[in-house]
Amino acid sequence: MDQPIRKNFASDNVVSVSPAIMDAMMRANTGAVPSYGNDALSHALDAVFSDLFETDVAVFPVTTGTAANALALSAIVPPYGAVVCDTNAHIANEEGGAPEFYTHGAKLLGLPSADGRMDAQTLSTRLRRAQGHGPESSPICALSLTQATEWGTVYDPSQIAALSSIARADGLAVHMDGARFANAVATLGCAPSDVTWRAGIDVLSFGATKNGAMAAEAVVFFKPDLARDFARRIKRGGHLWSKHRFLAAQLQAYVTDDLWLANARVANRATRRLASGLEAIAGVHLPFSCDANEIFAMLPPDVLGRLRAADYVFYPWDAPDGLEGEMVRLVTSFDMADADIDAFLAVARG
Amino acid sequence: MDQPIRKNFASDNVVSVSPAIMDAMMRANTGAVPSYGNDALSHALDAVFSDLFETDVAVFPVTTGTAANALALSAIVPPYGAVVCDTNAHIANEEGGAPEFYTHGAKLLGLPSADGRMDAQTLSTRLRRAQGHGPESSPICALSLTQATEWGTVYDPSQIAALSSIARADGLAVHMDGARFANAVATLGCAPSDVTWRAGIDVLSFGATKNGAMAAEAVVFFKPDLARDFARRIKRGGHLWSKHRFLAAQLQAYVTDDLWLANARVANRATRRLASGLEAIAGVHLPFSCDANEIFAMLPPDVLGRLRAADYVFYPWDAPDGLEGEMVRLVTSFDMADADIDAFLAVARG
Amino acid sequence: MDQPIRKNFASDNVVSVSPAIMDAMMRANTGAVPSYGNDALSHALDAVFSDLFETDVAVFPVTTGTAANALALSAIVPPYGAVVCDTNAHIANEEGGAPEFYTHGAKLLGLPSADGRMDAQTLSTRLRRAQGHGPESSPICALSLTQATEWGTVYDPSQIAALSSIARADGLAVHMDGARFANAVATLGCAPSDVTWRAGIDVLSFGATKNGAMAAEAVVFFKPDLARDFARRIKRGGHLWSKHRFLAAQLQAYVTDDLWLANARVANRATRRLASGLEAIAGVHLPFSCDANEIFAMLPPDVLGRLRAADYVFYPWDAPDGLEGEMVRLVTSFDMADADIDAFLAVARG
Amino acid sequence: MDQPIRKNFASDNVVSVSPAIMDAMMRANTGAVPSYGNDALSHALDAVFSDLFETDVAVFPVTTGTAANALALSAIVPPYGAVVCDTNAHIANEEGGAPEFYTHGAKLLGLPSADGRMDAQTLSTRLRRAQGHGPESSPICALSLTQATEWGTVYDPSQIAALSSIARADGLAVHMDGARFANAVATLGCAPSDVTWRAGIDVLSFGATKNGAMAAEAVVFFKPDLARDFARRIKRGGHLWSKHRFLAAQLQAYVTDDLWLANARVANRATRRLASGLEAIAGVHLPFSCDANEIFAMLPPDVLGRLRAADYVFYPWDAPDGLEGEMVRLVTSFDMADADIDAFLAVARG
Repeated sequence: MDQPIRKNFASDNVVSVSPAIMDAMMRANTGAVPSYGNDALSHALDAVFSDLFETDVAVFPVTTGTAANALALSAIVPPYGAVVCDTNAHIANEEGGAPEFYTHGAKLLGLPSADGRMDAQTLSTRLRRAQGHGPESSPICALSLTQATEWGTVYDPSQIAALSSIARADGLAVHMDGARFANAVATLGCAPSDVTWRAGIDVLSFGATKNGAMAAEAVVFFKPDLARDFARRIKRGGHLWSKHRFLAAQLQAYVTDDLWLANARVANRATRRLASGLEAIAGVHLPFSCDANEIFAMLPPDVLGRLRAADYVFYPWDAPDGLEGEMVRLVTSFDMADADIDAFLAVARG
Repeated sequence: MDQPIRKNFASDNVVSVSPAIMDAMMRANTGAVPSYGNDALSHALDAVFSDLFETDVAVFPVTTGTAANALALSAIVPPYGAVVCDTNAHIANEEGGAPEFYTHGAKLLGLPSADGRMDAQTLSTRLRRAQGHGPESSPICALSLTQATEWGTVYDPSQIAALSSIARADGLAVHMDGARFANAVATLGCAPSDVTWRAGIDVLSFGATKNGAMAAEAVVFFKPDLARDFARRIKRGGHLWSKHRFLAAQLQAYVTDDLWLANARVANRATRRLASGLEAIAGVHLPFSCDANEIFAMLPPDVLGRLRAADYVFYPWDAPDGLEGEMVRLVTSFDMADADIDAFLAVARG
Repeated sequence: MDQPIRKNFASDNVVSVSPAIMDAMMRANTGAVPSYGNDALSHALDAVFSDLFETDVAVFPVTTGTAANALALSAIVPPYGAVVCDTNAHIANEEGGAPEFYTHGAKLLGLPSADGRMDAQTLSTRLRRAQGHGPESSPICALSLTQATEWGTVYDPSQIAALSSIARADGLAVHMDGARFANAVATLGCAPSDVTWRAGIDVLSFGATKNGAMAAEAVVFFKPDLARDFARRIKRGGHLWSKHRFLAAQLQAYVTDDLWLANARVANRATRRLASGLEAIAGVHLPFSCDANEIFAMLPPDVLGRLRAADYVFYPWDAPDGLEGEMVRLVTSFDMADADIDAFLAVARG
Repeated sequence: MDQPIRKNFASDNVVSVSPAIMDAMMRANTGAVPSYGNDALSHALDAVFSDLFETDVAVFPVTTGTAANALALSAIVPPYGAVVCDTNAHIANEEGGAPEFYTHGAKLLGLPSADGRMDAQTLSTRLRRAQGHGPESSPICALSLTQATEWGTVYDPSQIAALSSIARADGLAVHMDGARFANAVATLGCAPSDVTWRAGIDVLSFGATKNGAMAAEAVVFFKPDLARDFARRIKRGGHLWSKHRFLAAQLQAYVTDDLWLANARVANRATRRLASGLEAIAGVHLPFSCDANEIFAMLPPDVLGRLRAADYVFYPWDAPDGLEGEMVRLVTSFDMADADIDAFLAVARG
C-alpha cells in the first residue's frame, strides 16, 4: 500500500522516531537495572562516543536541545560573563531564556553575519572592543557556534578552526550547538572530529531528536575537566532520568551503524531536491545556500497560495534585514521520500 | 518458563516500563504531527486529567519528579520567599537543589515529624513564629506535603485538609509531591480528588515514572490561574519536548483503565506481604507504618548479612534521630510477584 | 585664594559631595534613632517626593545607580521576560550584568537609535515582531528609557509620552533610568512630573550621586502597587542600610530648595560653554546635541595631544557605527566654574 | 550640660556615627578624584588591612553586613552547593535570603548548638553524613561561623581552629561573619590574626557599621585568589560606589589608632555592667555568657513592665527550645555611658 504524501515541512521535530531507535528502547525494557545512569547501556556511552569522536570524551545525555545548550553553556560561562553568538542563534532567540536561566544571568551577545556563519573579522573586532574594561563590563567567556547554522548553511572545518582560534587566543571556551550536527557532517563528508575538537570545539550539543530520536541529545565534552560539575547541573535542572537506560538506548541506536548519518543524508537529499526544484520556479528566491536540511525561501504569492490551499504546512520566518518579500522555512527529514518532494514541487509549480 | 526471582529492592525506579505504556508510545510513533504539545494526544490531557480529578485542571507533563516539584514550586513561591516542608522531604534533600534553582533561591524550611506526616500543631506554631517580621525574614509562601510520605506513611484526607486549612489561613499555596501518589490513593481507596483539591491542594506533582511510566510526571494545577506562566517556565528549564506526543502517550496510558491504581496495588500488596513477613523475624524493627510501597527496617546483622550474601540489593538509609541500629530501605514495585517476596523472606529468615 | 583649575572631565562621579548634603548628613548624626528606615527622616521621604512629583509615590533610597536600575527592573520584569532599551543603554553595557542578576536572567534587547533617543517607529516594529510567539520567545515586559540619554541628548515630554504609549498598548511597564534626570529637567524647564508619570513612566531611577550626593539614588514608583515586594528585594540585595537616616538625609537635602536643579544648571551651563567653544575649533566635531552635561567629541589629534599634555582627564569612547575618528567623552559637574571651562578651551585651541 | 540618658537597647545599629569617622568622611570631600575605587584612600586599604591582620589580604568594602556575607559566600560556594552554619545564624534567618540570592541558590544547612558556638563533634558528624552522595545531594562547600555569635558568646581561637580544621579536611572553605568581630577581639584580647587566618578562616566579613561606621563593612580575603572575581560580583550586586573614597575613608578611620577596639571595649563594658546588674535581680535569667555586647535575658513580668513603662526600647527574641519565659535582647554600643546602664538597672530593679 502506498504511503500518504508527507505534507508537513514545518520542522524536523514533527517526525516520528526512527524504528531502530524505538526498537532499542523496547529491548532496554527488560527487568530491573540500576537507575540514574548506573546501568550498562549508560555506562557504555562514554566509550561509544569516544570511539565516534576518536578521542576521550565525557558524554551526558539530556532530553532536549534547549537543555543541552543551556547546560553546556553553564559549564563554561560564569553568571557575570557573556557568550558571543550569531544574532540569529537559537540559544539567543528560541530557547525561552534557558541559557540565561542555567548560567544564572550571563549575557548573550549577538554578532551579525551574512548567512549564519560568523565572520572571523567580526568576531575579532568584537573581542578587541571587549578588552581592557573593568567590572562594569561583562567579560566574554565563550563563543557559541551553530552547525548547521540557523540559516541552513554549514561551516567547513577551516572556518570553525579560524573562529575557535580567535576565541581561544582571548581565553574563551568554544561551544557548538549541533542540533543539526548530523546534517552538517553528512554534507561535509568529514569525520565528526574534524569539525569539533580538531577545529577547537570544547563542548558540543550533539543533536539526535530532530534526526530520529524520541527525546535525546548528548552533551559531549572534549575537555572532560570542564564536565566536573556537570552531573550536578543536570540533576539540579531536573534532567536526570531515573530510568536512564532509555536515554542511553536512544543515543546508542542513533550512532550504531551510522544511523545518524544515514538519516541525515536522506533529509539533506530531500532538501537538495526541493531546493533545485524551487529555484527553477520563476520568482522564487533562496537567499542562502541550502547545505543541510533547511530551505529559506522567498516565494511568490501564487506559489504560497497554491501550497497553502493544498494543506502544506511550514512556517513564515522573519527575513533578515535587506531582504524584501515573505520568507518561509521548509525543513526536510529522514522520513521523506522523493515522492513527497516531487508532490510539493508539483503544487508549487501550479 | 519461570521468571527469575527479582532481587532488586533499591527503588521503584529500577523497574522497567509497563507494557501498556510502552505500547502506547509505539502507537504514537506514526507519521508527522505538530510538535511542542500541539498534537492530539497532548491536547487531550487536560480533559483526561480533569475527568480523573473531577474538576477543571491544567496539566503539564514533564520528564522527572524533580522537574515536576521544582517547577511547581516556582509557580507558587517568589525568589525571596520560603516553603515549609518536612525535614526529610525529597524536595529538600534529594533533588540536588532543583527547588532553589527553579525558584531562584527560595528557602526550604524543614519541620520535624514523627513519621513523615506533618503535625498540624507544629505547622501552626511555625507559621505563627513567622508572622510580623520585616524584609529580613523570608516570608513563608507555600506548604509542600509529600503523599505517600518519605517514610512510607500515608496521609488520610482529613489530615491533609487540616494542614491545608492552616496554610491557607496564612495565605500559603499548597503543593503536593505525589511521586508515590498512586500508592497512597490505592491504600486509601478514595477518589484522587479527595486527597487533593477537595483537601486544599493547589498543585500536585502526579508521579508516574516510579509506577510504570518511562519518564513522565504530570504537574496538575487545580487553580489553573497559577499556571499562567507555566509553559514558559517549562521551556526555560529545557523541559519542553519537541516530540511531545510521547510524553502525553505515557500519561494517557498510565491513567487509562486505572493502570496507575492497578500497578500501585501490586506494589503495595508486595510491601504488606514483605512487612508482615519481616515483623515475624526476631530482632527486626519497622519503625513506621508501611502504608505504601516502602519499608524502612532495622535489620539484625545476621539478617542483613544473609540478604547481602544472596545478592539482594537495597539502600542503607539514615535513621531518624532516636533510632538505634542500621536501617535499610526496601521498595516494592508493580512488577513484583509473591514469589519474589517469599524468596526474600526465606533468605532473611535464614 | 584661587581655586585650582579643575582638569578632570572623566565623569560626574569624580566630584565631591555638595556641602549642603554633607551638612545634612552631619546633622543627622545625633543620638540613637530606629534603624532600617524607621526613623523620621526616612519616613518623610514619601511625602517629600510625592510633593516633588505632584502625585502619590513610593520612594526607596539605594546606594548606587546600578542598584536602582536593576532593582527597579526586577519589580517589573519576570525572570523569563525581556526589556527593550537602547543599544547603548547603561543598563545593558555598563552595569556588570546587574539587571540580569536582579531579574534572575531576563533579557535586555537593544534597539538602535540615531542619538540615544529611541525612535517610536523602531519600538513599534520591534514590539510587533515579538507578538504571537510561544514560550520559545522571551516576552517583552518592559521598556527602559534613559533621561538624559547615553549620548547626552534629552527627550522632550512628548517623545517620552509617544514611546510609553506604544509600550503600554502592549502591556509593557515603563522604566526611566534617570542617572542624569536632574540635568534633563533643568534643560527642559518642565516639572518633574511632565517627563515621568504624566508621560507614562511607571518607575524612575532618580539619580543624585552624580549631581551632588555621596551615594544615594531614589527608586520612585508612580504606581505604588508595583512596589509591593520592593523592600524585600532591597534587603535581599544587601541594600538596606541599617543607619538609613544617612541615605534619607542625602535625598532630602538634594531636593530641598531645588538644590538638584541648581546643581544641574551649573553642570549644564558648563557643558554648553564648553560645547560652543569646541565647535569653534577647526576639525572638532560634536556628533550629538549637547543637551545635558555630557559632550561626545571627535577631536583632531593636535587638540587631543595638547589636552593630554596639560593633564586633562577624560575617557576615549567607542564611537557609534558610521563615525570616523577618535571620540572622547567630556563630562561637566556642579562644581565647575567658567574658569575651568575657559582654561580647557584655551589649551584645546592651542 | 548633661547628656540625656540613652534608652534604646534595640540594636547597635541605632547609634550614630563615630565622630572620628564622620570627620574622615568630611576630609575626603575635597575636589575631584578618580571614582570606583581608583582613588588614593581606596588604594591604601589593602595595605592598611594587611598590616592589621599581619598577612597579605585583599579587602573589598561594601555598604552592609548582609552584602558582605552574601558576597563572601558567593565567592566560596557554587550555586549547587551548601553552607553549614548555626541554626540561628544571621545569614540563615535575618538577611532576607541574600545568601541564596548571591550564591544563586546554594543551601544553608543549620546545625544546632548550645550557645551559638558550633560543636566540633556536631560538625564532624554532619560532614560525615554528607559524604558519598551523588548529585541528588547538595555538596557542602563552606562553613560559616559567627564571631561574636548570635547569642552573644565568643569563640576562642582554639575553638575556631578546631572547627576550621574539620571543615578543611573535607575541602570546605571557611567564612566568618564578623558583624561584631571587634567586640569579640576586644574580649579575647588577642590579635585579629589569631581568630582569623591563623585559626583557618579564609574570608571574613569585618563589621564596622554596628561599631561606629555609617555604612561600611570590609570583606577580607586571607586567600587572595578566592577574590579573583570579587570586584565583578560587587559591581553586579550594585555595590560598587562611584564615590568610593567615602567607603574607604570610613574603614581607614575605623581602624586608625584602634578606634574599632576602643569602641568595642566601651560597648562590651556596658554589657558586662548591665549583665551583672541584671543577674542580681531576682527572677532574671541570662541563659548565655555575655561575652560581647549583647545580652539575652529572661525577665520577670514586673521587670519587663517597668522598663517598658519607662520607654526603654529593646526587642523580644525567640527563645531557644527548652527555655521557658519571655526572652528579650539588649544590645549596648560604643556611645553608652555607665550612667545609661545604671539608669536602666535602677528602673529594672524597681
